[in-house]
Amino acid sequence: MNNISVVNILILFLWCILSVKSDEYHPSGSEWKTRRSARAVNNNEMLADYWNFDAQHRLLHQLSIRPNHNIAKNVILFLGDGMSVSTLAASRMYLGQLQNQSGEEARLFFEDFPYTGLAKTYCVDKQVADSACTATAYLSGVKANYGTLGVSAAVKRFNCSSSEDPANQVDSLAVWAQKAGKGTGIVTTARVTHASPAGVYAHTANRDWECDADVQKSKENPKMCEDIASQLIHNDPGRNLKVIMGGGRSKFLPKGMKDEEGKMGQRVDGVNLIHEWIVQKKRRTAAYVSDRESLSRVDYNSTDYLLGLFAADHMDYSLEADHEVQPSLAEMTAAAIELLSKERRGYFLFVEGARIDMAHHKAKAHLALDETVQFADAVRIATEITNPKDTLIVVTSDHSHTMTISGYSDRGNSIIGLNTQKSNIDNLPYTTLMYANGPGANSTRMNNADLTNANVTSNTGYVYPGSVPLKDETHGGDDVAVFANGPWAHLFVGLYEQNLIPHAIAYASCCGDGLTACKRRSATYQRRKH
Amino acid sequence: MNNISVVNILILFLWCILSVKSDEYHPSGSEWKTRRSARAVNNNEMLADYWNFDAQHRLLHQLSIRPNHNIAKNVILFLGDGMSVSTLAASRMYLGQLQNQSGEEARLFFEDFPYTGLAKTYCVDKQVADSACTATAYLSGVKANYGTLGVSAAVKRFNCSSSEDPANQVDSLAVWAQKAGKGTGIVTTARVTHASPAGVYAHTANRDWECDADVQKSKENPKMCEDIASQLIHNDPGRNLKVIMGGGRSKFLPKGMKDEEGKMGQRVDGVNLIHEWIVQKKRRTAAYVSDRESLSRVDYNSTDYLLGLFAADHMDYSLEADHEVQPSLAEMTAAAIELLSKERRGYFLFVEGARIDMAHHKAKAHLALDETVQFADAVRIATEITNPKDTLIVVTSDHSHTMTISGYSDRGNSIIGLNTQKSNIDNLPYTTLMYANGPGANSTRMNNADLTNANVTSNTGYVYPGSVPLKDETHGGDDVAVFANGPWAHLFVGLYEQNLIPHAIAYASCCGDGLTACKRRSATYQRRKH
Repeated sequence: MNNISVVNILILFLWCILSVKSDEYHPSGSEWKTRRSARAVNNNEMLADYWNFDAQHRLLHQLSIRPNHNIAKNVILFLGDGMSVSTLAASRMYLGQLQNQSGEEARLFFEDFPYTGLAKTYCVDKQVADSACTATAYLSGVKANYGTLGVSAAVKRFNCSSSEDPANQVDSLAVWAQKAGKGTGIVTTARVTHASPAGVYAHTANRDWECDADVQKSKENPKMCEDIASQLIHNDPGRNLKVIMGGGRSKFLPKGMKDEEGKMGQRVDGVNLIHEWIVQKKRRTAAYVSDRESLSRVDYNSTDYLLGLFAADHMDYSLEADHEVQPSLAEMTAAAIELLSKERRGYFLFVEGARIDMAHHKAKAHLALDETVQFADAVRIATEITNPKDTLIVVTSDHSHTMTISGYSDRGNSIIGLNTQKSNIDNLPYTTLMYANGPGANSTRMNNADLTNANVTSNTGYVYPGSVPLKDETHGGDDVAVFANGPWAHLFVGLYEQNLIPHAIAYASCCGDGLTACKRRSATYQRRKH
Repeated sequence: MNNISVVNILILFLWCILSVKSDEYHPSGSEWKTRRSARAVNNNEMLADYWNFDAQHRLLHQLSIRPNHNIAKNVILFLGDGMSVSTLAASRMYLGQLQNQSGEEARLFFEDFPYTGLAKTYCVDKQVADSACTATAYLSGVKANYGTLGVSAAVKRFNCSSSEDPANQVDSLAVWAQKAGKGTGIVTTARVTHASPAGVYAHTANRDWECDADVQKSKENPKMCEDIASQLIHNDPGRNLKVIMGGGRSKFLPKGMKDEEGKMGQRVDGVNLIHEWIVQKKRRTAAYVSDRESLSRVDYNSTDYLLGLFAADHMDYSLEADHEVQPSLAEMTAAAIELLSKERRGYFLFVEGARIDMAHHKAKAHLALDETVQFADAVRIATEITNPKDTLIVVTSDHSHTMTISGYSDRGNSIIGLNTQKSNIDNLPYTTLMYANGPGANSTRMNNADLTNANVTSNTGYVYPGSVPLKDETHGGDDVAVFANGPWAHLFVGLYEQNLIPHAIAYASCCGDGLTACKRRSATYQRRKH
């Protein structure tokens, strides 16, 4: 057997102490700037010992990981919508380059979580899933049909009557948590009635029925087929949510009524659901806020219910938002946790970085990467203000996208720019990030477009190339990553169907109808007694 | 707290017992047939309880996972070259469809391993890595420059003299294992001098210097700059390898000399390295074989060294190979394990599914998926004939590719065929699998190619579309998955730099200069004594 010399051990520990933390850059609000010139590679990387010590350091870390068998009093489920494995890699490079590093060595905050898994995302009727059937999987533990929410696959999309049959409806983690006496909440950058957050509280045959006007457009009767916004305000578990934050005011306000920013409501039933929510909560303990300023003034001690709607539609991309008006995802997350932390039996909070997906659909990779970095910052805040001894944090995505990171660019080359290599057939440059399909197909080689002088890196809304022309780039069918920290985080290792996730969360936090850590414990206790 | 009813538990356990094993189809040799019509989705998927029981079943499995702190007497490192996360998903669908299932629900054998991680693959000078710098990372624990093998990043590609400097050379797991008295071996479907297997034994500034003629082509002196084949036969640790199997006879035979199949050697030094190997091993305990038949006749009891070269160049894609002449990867793996199992102190075996990568480079996705399924079958054989109590098996890849799985095909739609949806811009069909770039770019929309009647599924060599025309499709820059089973497999969770892998393997198997489970143990023992 070889022995490590004393000198080696000394160097190793010095390395551990001196090693640079990669999460030191915490972007927020308007301080964001997109630096495009990356720093050169760290010269130490030329040394074998740099990598050896780095690996030995990491090995020590791996050896220090211990399963946490506490009960998860609190659970936060972070969902990066459309945050594919390649989105993770590209976004960390983008983050590193914002930090003036070469980029590839950077880490998104949650990439330091100890346990990782891979989840299979297909839905019952589609090889490649959407955000609705997957929300049903990762929130209610049941795979469903494309476009449907909170119902089993017995319900075909658009079949309203079968979705109204209670036998076909499935409950989400929010129901399970509420039954266990926990506080619950949702935070998203989309409309709060959009597919992912609606997976927490809605049962519907069509994710697009966000308000009654949407139901009417489908030639269905809104009285038979309750819209998602109405379900949120009127039904369990939506009306019991302690925190609701995101965009989508238009789905709650009647046609002809203007919101705080002068945007029109869309409802045809004449109902102001925001007002209804306030009345329902009897004003005393509830706060409705519509901008960052009023959010910052909320007194969490005297507030039990918080409704924050910060945009008529989705909230804006962080790079395009007015940060005086719209809070960041990290700020909303911190506010939600502050409010829910009062819950004696703990809470379940769902936080979505929704616009990663939307940017991908428009082939706007720069925005998708930036939204991912914003999302990671929300995970950072949540991790910092909670305790891993009693709070399980799970970070995952609903489905992949078709974005790839190609070519053999030099280290530190701008991940959002042109590759350092050109085509060896037509000698034209190409972007490192590309999509298989989408709106960018028109700007690609089919028209023999020469990107040499294209305005790629300085245009945050640049539409990246793809092969197949489609109005919206599609999702991808590959697996998504799962990162977990806190009680029972070790349950999230391996490769599994996506619908395992809420079952494992329910186990850790002792809610739901399945196996839980509490039931296990009491069984063990009884065995010991007799 | 809710309680599970007795009936529920009963149903759950019945479910566990009756649940179908997905690894029941074991392809080998010419029995492979590509079935293209997929089976309909299992009707049980319409039931919420199907998914609930499935998840509870999996949760029980997750709860049963226990870290294994044994010493890994044996280690097998399986490397699926270019086996990206999307390749895994597409290949399992392909496997499932071969098994007459809808496909998405299938599992590659190693996807059932308990522990999973993600590895960052970039090399020191390139954002997107090649198989050489990554081999140095996952075999020697040190990240290196693109195109270099077994040397630190102090060596620039093609700089022969700096690669000959021992200070710049790094040792692989094979050296560490040999020093610990273990047997070592390599198995690959590529030339045994190709980048990944060469990472086990070579130090070179250029992965392409596989024989002396290759060195000469670069205007270097082969006497100063030893070629990879020569290093394998003459130097440590290559000459000590107990098992060497794969293709590449031409790199070992002199120009003008024909091999068993009449193919010419390439060496200009006139040396027959195969003969040298036999002489060196003194014939008594060494066997050289060149086809499947002679491999099957090897007497492992009386054989200590085995050299199997089954092709002049790379071995053939499984779908194109003459299985009477070339053994499968699974067969070679089984033979290697049988021979190495005699080692009193255990062994380190490296097994590469090399041609996944090569098929991707040619945009031949069908072949890439099939090679992945072959690779998974080799992992199955290895797992079945070893014991997880003393054998650590790690399955990973070196780098990604640009293949994506796009669109929203119906469940069970042939993964190698056209999507069930068409473009909503030009109404033309597209393939579900596509590449960002590569030789298929010419067959895409740039020429407005209509794939309606394209011979996609029945042509195993179909070249899949891409955006950017390149002679060879490029690698991808996203992370690769790591699957582990056996002693210390739990060290492989999380997201880490690729060069952690050999350090963790060395820890588990008590070799190398870093921390090991044995040193830890003895330290603990001493503390206890005093």
